Amino acid sequence: MFLPILFVLSFLFSSSNAADFCVGDLNGPQGPAGYSCKKEAVLTVNDFVYSGLASTGNTSNLIKAAVTPAFDAQFPGVNGLGISLARLDLAVGGVIPMHTHPGASELLVVIQGTICAGFISSANKVYFKSLNKGEIMVFPRGLLHFQINSGKTQALAFVSFSSPSPGLQILDFALFADDLPTDIIQETTFLDVAQIKKLKGVLGGTG
Amino acid sequence: MFLPILFVLSFLFSSSNAADFCVGDLNGPQGPAGYSCKKEAVLTVNDFVYSGLASTGNTSNLIKAAVTPAFDAQFPGVNGLGISLARLDLAVGGVIPMHTHPGASELLVVIQGTICAGFISSANKVYFKSLNKGEIMVFPRGLLHFQINSGKTQALAFVSFSSPSPGLQILDFALFADDLPTDIIQETTFLDVAQIKKLKGVLGGTG
Amino acid sequence: MFLPILFVLSFLFSSSNAADFCVGDLNGPQGPAGYSCKKEAVLTVNDFVYSGLASTGNTSNLIKAAVTPAFDAQFPGVNGLGISLARLDLAVGGVIPMHTHPGASELLVVIQGTICAGFISSANKVYFKSLNKGEIMVFPRGLLHFQINSGKTQALAFVSFSSPSPGLQILDFALFADDLPTDIIQETTFLDVAQIKKLKGVLGGTG
Amino acid sequence: MFLPILFVLSFLFSSSNAADFCVGDLNGPQGPAGYSCKKEAVLTVNDFVYSGLASTGNTSNLIKAAVTPAFDAQFPGVNGLGISLARLDLAVGGVIPMHTHPGASELLVVIQGTICAGFISSANKVYFKSLNKGEIMVFPRGLLHFQINSGKTQALAFVSFSSPSPGLQILDFALFADDLPTDIIQETTFLDVAQIKKLKGVLGGTG
Amino acid sequence: MFLPILFVLSFLFSSSNAADFCVGDLNGPQGPAGYSCKKEAVLTVNDFVYSGLASTGNTSNLIKAAVTPAFDAQFPGVNGLGISLARLDLAVGGVIPMHTHPGASELLVVIQGTICAGFISSANKVYFKSLNKGEIMVFPRGLLHFQINSGKTQALAFVSFSSPSPGLQILDFALFADDLPTDIIQETTFLDVAQIKKLKGVLGGTG
Amino acid sequence: MFLPILFVLSFLFSSSNAADFCVGDLNGPQGPAGYSCKKEAVLTVNDFVYSGLASTGNTSNLIKAAVTPAFDAQFPGVNGLGISLARLDLAVGGVIPMHTHPGASELLVVIQGTICAGFISSANKVYFKSLNKGEIMVFPRGLLHFQINSGKTQALAFVSFSSPSPGLQILDFALFADDLPTDIIQETTFLDVAQIKKLKGVLGGTG
Repeated sequence: MFLPILFVLSFLFSSSNAADFCVGDLNGPQGPAGYSCKKEAVLTVNDFVYSGLASTGNTSNLIKAAVTPAFDAQFPGVNGLGISLARLDLAVGGVIPMHTHPGASELLVVIQGTICAGFISSANKVYFKSLNKGEIMVFPRGLLHFQINSGKTQALAFVSFSSPSPGLQILDFALFADDLPTDIIQETTFLDVAQIKKLKGVLGGTG
Repeated sequence: MFLPILFVLSFLFSSSNAADFCVGDLNGPQGPAGYSCKKEAVLTVNDFVYSGLASTGNTSNLIKAAVTPAFDAQFPGVNGLGISLARLDLAVGGVIPMHTHPGASELLVVIQGTICAGFISSANKVYFKSLNKGEIMVFPRGLLHFQINSGKTQALAFVSFSSPSPGLQILDFALFADDLPTDIIQETTFLDVAQIKKLKGVLGGTG
Repeated sequence: MFLPILFVLSFLFSSSNAADFCVGDLNGPQGPAGYSCKKEAVLTVNDFVYSGLASTGNTSNLIKAAVTPAFDAQFPGVNGLGISLARLDLAVGGVIPMHTHPGASELLVVIQGTICAGFISSANKVYFKSLNKGEIMVFPRGLLHFQINSGKTQALAFVSFSSPSPGLQILDFALFADDLPTDIIQETTFLDVAQIKKLKGVLGGTG
Repeated sequence: MFLPILFVLSFLFSSSNAADFCVGDLNGPQGPAGYSCKKEAVLTVNDFVYSGLASTGNTSNLIKAAVTPAFDAQFPGVNGLGISLARLDLAVGGVIPMHTHPGASELLVVIQGTICAGFISSANKVYFKSLNKGEIMVFPRGLLHFQINSGKTQALAFVSFSSPSPGLQILDFALFADDLPTDIIQETTFLDVAQIKKLKGVLGGTG
Repeated sequence: MFLPILFVLSFLFSSSNAADFCVGDLNGPQGPAGYSCKKEAVLTVNDFVYSGLASTGNTSNLIKAAVTPAFDAQFPGVNGLGISLARLDLAVGGVIPMHTHPGASELLVVIQGTICAGFISSANKVYFKSLNKGEIMVFPRGLLHFQINSGKTQALAFVSFSSPSPGLQILDFALFADDLPTDIIQETTFLDVAQIKKLKGVLGGTG
Repeated sequence: MFLPILFVLSFLFSSSNAADFCVGDLNGPQGPAGYSCKKEAVLTVNDFVYSGLASTGNTSNLIKAAVTPAFDAQFPGVNGLGISLARLDLAVGGVIPMHTHPGASELLVVIQGTICAGFISSANKVYFKSLNKGEIMVFPRGLLHFQINSGKTQALAFVSFSSPSPGLQILDFALFADDLPTDIIQETTFLDVAQIKKLKGVLGGTG
């Protein structure tokens, strides 16, 4: 007896999956707004769930830290939804070096340990604080910021972003891990040539 | 000798704090894009840090759960930045009832315990799964969704939103905790009058 | 003599059709911002005109109502333009059941008859009123709302949306017309199991 | 017994009215995103309802037509919601002259009569058609368009816009009803001076 | 010794080029947000540089002016970045006729000569001024505006737009250089038929 | 005889100035979308014109360069319009040091001289080139970039931005011209303490 409702309304639901979400098809064309959408017919709950942040990142490296992203490239379920996440693991003495996200604001929540986090505004005003478990801090879009394990135990945090593809520009990698010529670095940063060459040596930069 | 640089460039930084952020002035006028901005001159790091999510929410209630928000109204530092956060505490048997956020997508990360989370799409397709520690799930903007402690221990999750003021419409509260007339509820939900009156009795609804 | 103008300016108009509009190609890839564009060269005025709302919807069903959409999936001319339309027909006693549009605000204009329309805010405040011919009402994005023929004649309304693909989540269909398990419904809505089973029976739900 | 829920959740609803809507306070400060918001506490359903479009516009004028807007300035309930409406009345022979809406796309639905409507794209391609009752046509953002009563009876249409403040620039008023100097009009439109002066005379232009 | 950093972080950079930019692939599908992106792997600096504005435009035409665009169709590097540019050359007596950009605001800077520039608001208020070298003027989105060489020498200006595809609707071309029927023009602009036919004759219009 | 048109349509133009533009009132409240609007009644053409970029900037400083902005704080006419401009003067040997604009993409046009400009992507790929008069280059939002006078004469460029308040974070000023502690700089940039102290000494940093 209710079938008429189903009949009348069901055509509303035929081809309109973009209204709700747009799980990214990493092999399809990509545009300024993100990846192409997979059809809803092929989706399962696993397209909206990601387990890649469940394990502790490997912090056996010089910065004693690991960043594990769940951006749209790793977790296509967030494509087009204006949000993404990453996991930060910081061993004792660990540091997430000075960096920016060109396309997103960031919100950090400390899950374990103590993290000294900070950012610098366009007005060259510095905002930093040591954060304990459960405390949160926001880093406005595009500004230089950093996180340091300021405690005596392993630290864990999750950071969410206001974009599915926030980007990540780590200052030292941008300057010293590519082929940006030493003289350009010197002229545009006022760093000494010896300092530049030392860091290029460590980070693999050429030029 | 460098002072000329400072002199030449410093005027850039005089009155442009809106470029970077807009910490909300909860007492100023509010517009469609959010609260008015506080002047950068009066800001400290504490405007960008919030400690209100550090404590376990009180789950001694019927749903055995608590939602603690850090939206712009609680944490004005996120005003205008396209992001916010909330803490979910679920005691054993706890439930965050069926609800929507009218203005934001949501990204959940399980910190402790096991949570069965799900949502329903416009196409009436149901997506739900039991999530363990470290797993994440995305709930697209505006869709009905829920979270249930599906384990045998207290559960904790953080949920981030793609807006500083995502809104929250809990289905049962919308229907049964206000003065929406019983006959309108009956006509628009097909629920039996007895069922409606029972829930209104519990939730305090009138009309 | 004016030909030089044509010559100089004409190249401006060669490949820039996306500047003005993007009539959807329903067979091309779809992204978060909508469907791919058809080339302007193949377009005619009929790509911008839709006749599918001209006929009265079939209201011979239990809700005595019909919703006929002109979203981008039906009317690709609105793709990317931030707007769409639907037609509501309500026979005497007809009801558009409680529902949300996850991605759009809605603006209703009564063309014929009398319609009692309302919505519920995140603050659980109820706004409803009986509207006569020519009166309009706005339903903010993502909130539960409904329309009831509150008169003694057939009613007609047009509703416009702030998105070409507003989505439509009808509460009863979301809960009772799919495979959402009864125990989850019970836990997350506090409805009685008998009530849930009754409505699942009518609406075809399983699980 | 349920009171603890109310207690735990109620603080969510205290000051967050901007999440759902922002009914415009026409006397408060106005920003790029619209008017300031009225507090939800003072709102009633009448803030979301507008009756100003219910009456036939006065078409006893030279264009035999009337445009009655329900933009945010007339209907503050749409402020910030990305949508607005207007009513078009066209007597026999009535014309809505060539115009643009600088900030919105438009979607027209014919309620009564026959309307010849059209627009011109950036590529100087003309799209126009005679529309009957129930037919709809979309006019992409910012493009010149027009509506003419092409039938033998009074015509009525509603037009919705993808912005609460779409703006309206009527070509003849822009050119001939202000103080734009005749020589500038002549140089920038190639119209003859006699033609310009004639229309300025009729429309009240000076300069 | 630093290699572990590279190892740990490098996977962040694998497939996320959309985070930063989306150089347009003019042969790929186009959506409402712009062209499809080229892969970063194939990009060189020349994708972000355009030389097409370096030469003086040919002003040997009736308007004694030339507009040379660097929109996304000509300069795909700006696709998705919210900005584009054009070069205006005006010989003595040159005029950029009355026009609109349906999708963007415009900012003009005079490089050489003197330019009288102006626009008309929706309120039919005229704003115009003679601008000298180095002066800038903004033309809000979608409004009719013009530029006239008001000096005694060749003039040059650059205009930037708030969109990679601002569109361009030149009033005379829209009315008189296509197949818009003369009677429709007459009815919607109040221009005399003789005037319309004269301009159609010059600009190549039919209909 | 035409007065009826004026009468019927004129009320459209009464209070809707926000539709077209929103000239910033620097003394009014500021929100996430920008400054409050001045009323159109008080505006003149000078609100849309700015002469502050007409003079050569003072390059008698260490970087032999000057940046002169026309952001909303200097030129309130661009408030809310999604665009702004700045003038770059570079004496021989002049350099605009490595910097980002957190909130905007940038489009540079060389007016005089030769400028070596470049940026670094999130993928640590370097894009730089020497640009001659009339050539343009785009710097995507939020990425580190620089400009160097690579010629033997004074250079001049105009840069437009995709926001009225793009922000400006100069790397050396962010690190060395404020009170960011030396040990935090060292830990987050890997620079040697001696290098940090040297640049702090020059730029006036403390801490």
